[in-house]
Amino acid sequence: MKGGRIRGGNRSSEGGNMVGVNPFFERLRGGYLFAEIGKRSEDYRCRHPEKKLISLGIGDVTRPLVSEVIRAMHDAVEEMGREETFRGYGPYFGYDFLVRAIAENDYAVRSVCLNEDEIFVNDGCKSDSAGILDLFAEDTPIAVCDPVYPVYVDAAVMTGRSGAYDEARKRYERIDTFECNAETGFLPSVPDASLPGAFSGLIFLCFPNNPTGAAIGRNELKRWVDYANQTDSVIIYDSAYEAFITEDLPHSIFEIDGARTCAIELRSFSKTAGFTGMRCGYTVIPAELVRGGVHLRDLWARRQATRFNGVSYITQRAAEAVYSPTGRRQTQAVIRYYQENAQMLREGLRRSGFRVSGGINAPYLWIETPDKKPSWEFFDEMLEKYGIIVTPGAGFGAAGEGYFRMTAFGCWDHAFEAVRRLKNGGIE
Amino acid sequence: MKGGRIRGGNRSSEGGNMVGVNPFFERLRGGYLFAEIGKRSEDYRCRHPEKKLISLGIGDVTRPLVSEVIRAMHDAVEEMGREETFRGYGPYFGYDFLVRAIAENDYAVRSVCLNEDEIFVNDGCKSDSAGILDLFAEDTPIAVCDPVYPVYVDAAVMTGRSGAYDEARKRYERIDTFECNAETGFLPSVPDASLPGAFSGLIFLCFPNNPTGAAIGRNELKRWVDYANQTDSVIIYDSAYEAFITEDLPHSIFEIDGARTCAIELRSFSKTAGFTGMRCGYTVIPAELVRGGVHLRDLWARRQATRFNGVSYITQRAAEAVYSPTGRRQTQAVIRYYQENAQMLREGLRRSGFRVSGGINAPYLWIETPDKKPSWEFFDEMLEKYGIIVTPGAGFGAAGEGYFRMTAFGCWDHAFEAVRRLKNGGIE
Repeated sequence: MKGGRIRGGNRSSEGGNMVGVNPFFERLRGGYLFAEIGKRSEDYRCRHPEKKLISLGIGDVTRPLVSEVIRAMHDAVEEMGREETFRGYGPYFGYDFLVRAIAENDYAVRSVCLNEDEIFVNDGCKSDSAGILDLFAEDTPIAVCDPVYPVYVDAAVMTGRSGAYDEARKRYERIDTFECNAETGFLPSVPDASLPGAFSGLIFLCFPNNPTGAAIGRNELKRWVDYANQTDSVIIYDSAYEAFITEDLPHSIFEIDGARTCAIELRSFSKTAGFTGMRCGYTVIPAELVRGGVHLRDLWARRQATRFNGVSYITQRAAEAVYSPTGRRQTQAVIRYYQENAQMLREGLRRSGFRVSGGINAPYLWIETPDKKPSWEFFDEMLEKYGIIVTPGAGFGAAGEGYFRMTAFGCWDHAFEAVRRLKNGGIE
Repeated sequence: MKGGRIRGGNRSSEGGNMVGVNPFFERLRGGYLFAEIGKRSEDYRCRHPEKKLISLGIGDVTRPLVSEVIRAMHDAVEEMGREETFRGYGPYFGYDFLVRAIAENDYAVRSVCLNEDEIFVNDGCKSDSAGILDLFAEDTPIAVCDPVYPVYVDAAVMTGRSGAYDEARKRYERIDTFECNAETGFLPSVPDASLPGAFSGLIFLCFPNNPTGAAIGRNELKRWVDYANQTDSVIIYDSAYEAFITEDLPHSIFEIDGARTCAIELRSFSKTAGFTGMRCGYTVIPAELVRGGVHLRDLWARRQATRFNGVSYITQRAAEAVYSPTGRRQTQAVIRYYQENAQMLREGLRRSGFRVSGGINAPYLWIETPDKKPSWEFFDEMLEKYGIIVTPGAGFGAAGEGYFRMTAFGCWDHAFEAVRRLKNGGIE
C-alpha cells in the first residue's frame, strides 16, 4: 500500500457516516441548580446592595488547610524544584506512600484489610462517580436514591444509559429510584430479592447522605450488601462524608461482611480535609469483585492507565499529611468546627419551628419547607425575607420537593447570624 | 406511592437485565508497551547489576520545575493556609488568571484571538484526549495517523467506537488510519475531499508529532483544515509539543484560516514547563465549531461541569507563573536543554549510521532499525549490546514497525553516554 494513502475502515468506504453529536446531552435535566441559585442570589444583591447575604447553599468548605498539610506541601514544592528529588509522571494509581497511608488509616484501623492494588487515587470523587460507569455494559440497569447527588444520574444520562426523561413520572425511563422520605427515615428501603423481577444492576448509595444528611447503620447496610450479592448487583458506595459520623455507624461499606464481592467505594479528601480546591480522592475496588468472569479492579486499572495520568505529587503529599498524628488532630478540629455549626443550625431551625433531619452524622441539614411549600418558592422566601441562600430540595430529584438543604460548611459567624435572622423573623 | 418502595424503570420490571461488564476493554491491544519495556529492562538489570542502563524510552521530563514556578507555588500554598485567601472549589473551566494568561501568551501573541470561554483548563492532555470523544455520537467515524500516540485509539476502543481488531490488517475495523512513513516525510497525506466516500469524521492530528517528531507546515495544515471544512470533519489537534518548534511553523491550528469551524486543540504544560508530575493542560473549542446545530464548546462546558471539578488552585498558579517574564525565560532555557540533547542524539545516531528523523521541532527522534529489523528485536539488541532503553516503534501502530523512538527528555550526561556507547559499538 502506498505510503500516506488512507487505509479505510468499513465506514468511510460506505461513505454514509459523518460527525454526529452525542445525542444524550440534551436529555440532561437541571444540572443548572447552582447556576440558578447563583442567578437569583445575584439578582437579590443588585436589588439590595446594602444587605449581607448568608450562603448556606453550596457544599464547599471554608476553613483553610491545616498547618501540617501546608508544611507537607511546602516540602513537596521544594522537592519539585531540585534535580535530585524532582518527580515527573507518578504512578497511575497513586504513590505508594499515600496508598499505604489510606490502607492503614482509613481501613486497617477499622479491621478492614485492603490490598494496596485495590486502592486507586484520583482527582476527586466526582470524576470517578461518573467514570466508574465505564466498567459496565451500557444496558446495565442503574438505581439511585431520590433525592440524590446529581452526578451519578447526569453521567448516566450523558453516556446514553438513562433512557428518555418521563415528564409525568419525573424520572428517566431506565433509571430506577429508591425514594427516601420522612417515612423511611430518609433511607432507601431494601427491596425483596426473592420477588420476580427484583432489581439487578448498579446501585448507587451515598452515606452519610448528600443531600439529606441521613446515615446508615450496620444492620441496614448489611441488608443492602446481602441484596446485592443475591441479585448479582454492584453497589457504588459513596462515603465522601464519613469523617462527619459521630455515632456508632459504619464508615466504610467494607466493614460489612460480604461487601468485597459486591461493592466499590468512593472516598474523597474534599470534605475530610478541606481539599475541594486541591482535587484528591480515591476509589476502592476489591479483588473479589468479579462480574462475567472479569475482575473489575483489573478493568479499572486498565481504564485509569489509559485515560488518566495520576494526581499531582504535591497534592498526594498533602493528602498523606492528613494521616500524620498532627495532621489528623488538626483536621479533626476542623471537622468539629463544622459539626458545631451543624448542631447550632439544627437547634436554631428547630426552635424556629422547622422539621429538620441530618446534621448529626453529616455536614448537611435536610429541612421540610413550611406547609410543604415548593422548594423554589421557599428558596425565594428565604432569600427575600432572611437574606439566606439555601439549596432547594427539588434540585436533587422529585422526592426532594418540599425540602431544602443547608450546609454546615460556612463560617460559624454566618451560621450564627442565620439562626438569629430566623429567630427574629427577618433579615433586620 | 409508598415511601421507600423502588420506583421501577422499564428494565427491572422486565427482570431481564443485570450487571454486564463493558465488553470493549478486551479489544484493547498493546497498551502494555511501557510495561513490557519495564519488564525487559528489569530483567536486564537482574542479569547485569553492574551495568548502568540509560533510559531514552519513556517521554518523561527530568529537569526540575523552574524557580519562578516554585516561588508561585509556595505563595499559593500559603494562601491555602490562611482563612482570608483560602480557595475551595475553583471554576470548572479554570481560574480567570490562568485562562487570560493562556489567551494572551499562547494565542494573542500569534495573532490568534480566543475568547476566554473557549479555553478549558484540565488535569493534562491525556484526560481530554480520551474524554473529547464524549462530545460525539458513537458511530462518528474516527481516523488517526499510524504510528500514533495510543490514547486516542484506546479511548475509542474502550467506548465501543473501534470495531473489532483485524489481525490480518493489524487495525481496528472502524478506525481509519493515515500512514506516515519516510516516503511521506512522516506526515499524513491529505485525502481528496471530492472523491466519493471521502472520509468524514473525527481526525486526530498531533504536531509536532509523538512518536515521529515530524512537524507540519502552514500550507500542509491549511490543506487539512480545508479538507475538514469540506467534509464536515472535526480535527482534534494535539499540540502538546509546540514549545519545541524551532522552525517557522504553526504552533496552533488556530493560526490557520478556517480552523475555527473545524478544530479542537489540546495543549499541555507537561512538556512545555515540566509539569508531567503536576497535571495541567487545556483544551480549546472555538465558538464557531458547530455540528448538527450544536455548539461543541457549550456541550463540553456541560460535560466538564458535570464530570470534573477543576484543577488544583496551586497547580493553576504554577501554570500562570510559566507565562511571567522570568518564568518564560527559565522554561525556555529548560526547553533549550532538551533541544540540545535532541541535537546531540540526532548527530550521534547519524554518525553511527542510523537514519534519523524528528528531533528538530520535537523532543522525539524517530529512527529506522538497521536492515528494517523488527522493533522489538532491535529493542533487545539496544538493551543487550548498548545498555540503552528505547521505545519500539511497533508499539505505536503497524506503520511503526522497523522504527524506534528516542526521547531527548533525559539528562545531558545520559544522552552523551548513549552516543558514546553507540560510537564505541557497545556498552564497554
